[in-house]
Amino acid sequence: MGSRVLPDELLIDAVATEEILVDFLRRETRRAGFNRVIIGLSGGIDSAVSAALACRALGSSRVLCALLPYRTSSADSRRDARRIARVLGAPAVTIDISPMVDAYFRRARGATRLRRGNRMARERMAILYDLSLRDRRLVIGTSNKTELLLGYGTLFGDMASALNPVGDLYKTQVRQLGSRLGIPDEIVWKTPTADLWAGQSDERDLGYAYRDIDRLLVRLVEQRDSPEEAAAAGFPKRMIAAIGRRMARSQFKRRPPVIAKLTRRAVNIDFRYPRDWGS
Amino acid sequence: MGSRVLPDELLIDAVATEEILVDFLRRETRRAGFNRVIIGLSGGIDSAVSAALACRALGSSRVLCALLPYRTSSADSRRDARRIARVLGAPAVTIDISPMVDAYFRRARGATRLRRGNRMARERMAILYDLSLRDRRLVIGTSNKTELLLGYGTLFGDMASALNPVGDLYKTQVRQLGSRLGIPDEIVWKTPTADLWAGQSDERDLGYAYRDIDRLLVRLVEQRDSPEEAAAAGFPKRMIAAIGRRMARSQFKRRPPVIAKLTRRAVNIDFRYPRDWGS
Repeated sequence: MGSRVLPDELLIDAVATEEILVDFLRRETRRAGFNRVIIGLSGGIDSAVSAALACRALGSSRVLCALLPYRTSSADSRRDARRIARVLGAPAVTIDISPMVDAYFRRARGATRLRRGNRMARERMAILYDLSLRDRRLVIGTSNKTELLLGYGTLFGDMASALNPVGDLYKTQVRQLGSRLGIPDEIVWKTPTADLWAGQSDERDLGYAYRDIDRLLVRLVEQRDSPEEAAAAGFPKRMIAAIGRRMARSQFKRRPPVIAKLTRRAVNIDFRYPRDWGS
Repeated sequence: MGSRVLPDELLIDAVATEEILVDFLRRETRRAGFNRVIIGLSGGIDSAVSAALACRALGSSRVLCALLPYRTSSADSRRDARRIARVLGAPAVTIDISPMVDAYFRRARGATRLRRGNRMARERMAILYDLSLRDRRLVIGTSNKTELLLGYGTLFGDMASALNPVGDLYKTQVRQLGSRLGIPDEIVWKTPTADLWAGQSDERDLGYAYRDIDRLLVRLVEQRDSPEEAAAAGFPKRMIAAIGRRMARSQFKRRPPVIAKLTRRAVNIDFRYPRDWGS
């Protein structure tokens, strides 16, 4: 878990950040023509913070919390998700994703846990988008900047959303903001897990602690350090290489499908108006 | 169905187009570190053309055709999908999506056909991506430019892919290319349908014939005509407004999730390297 005191380069102004993000959610939700949202609560800090921001932006009654457990989801995750919805005073719906996921893997019993985990993430996306259409709600995303930069998430699964308020905050910064927003300490500081299989740990998957990863990412991304400069600052060469590789290899998860360009105005290449074009 | 002779502004050089797109698929597949692909065959012309291009680029044996019918899928669609795989000499796998989709709607029996259709499209995406992980295959997209510009497709469903060879071709141009690639005439010229419910017709959904829509889109997008100029060229004002509205309202489907920017380098805003960055 490591120290709770963050190094200077990761400290954020939580008050100002809250204000910016609440304003972002309020403005962008309205601009898209909506006044309600839906968000999947996993029991973790990222979705807790996204939901708390949405409640402040729109009022708790307009934020539907979707609890989407799989049969192997830990009791802790389920309990924490329920607790977050309760603390926020937001309506919650629980849908067990096991019947749909299991119906698929009945024909592929030997599937790896990574395949199963991706399928679960995409099942949850499909449910969030279905309820978003049913109720005219926007889907709020919960992928933080660390996950986005490392590609630690499922494309068209948990990485899919309409608006993502926490995508420019590193994991350790989401925690800071969570404390500010009144998320209970046990949730802010619990061991991060995607909970896609029993005993999964983000930091074991990634090979490093979030605190160290985030410090390195600040150097490589915010300060534009070269790998050599990061090494001179004391980061192990093996870690710099591993993190750099994850960033490069996951670039496809951060952009739309690659379209073969034939005309002068190809979608996503030349034809890329701001979202409010024409409105 | 309308005339099979296209107006000048929609005619493509099918020979050159084939060459460019085959080269695109071969190069981009390798560059991503893959040598195999997977593609969902619906029985329609778009997926037939994408699959035919992939077979020419990589060899038929490296193109897995996934036939993913729902229990209401028409017998014609099923038969045509099988026929396309056979004509191409590519391996095919059939997975009935009914058990997964029906497991979900068991708890929402009154769901509209649009909700059901979206769910089917996302189920297919999840299966294509699962098999892509199992076999190390890239997912090839099949959304044409008309669909992309009008948002006539399911976000994170049929609009999701790694590489899309037909995304810069209008629907009517996909047909031209299909004839050139040896797709059987009955498939090239059949009435376009997403086949998400019995009797669905693209042109009825959209309110206009593809031929007319494509002619208008060429003016608005390629030639940058104003609505007034398009009206002066003879397009009905009501049609120009309807098509313009569809383009504007579907802009969110053509771009990645909107991330709240806090730093100088936010993902998808400032941090947007070319895909081959770091490789």
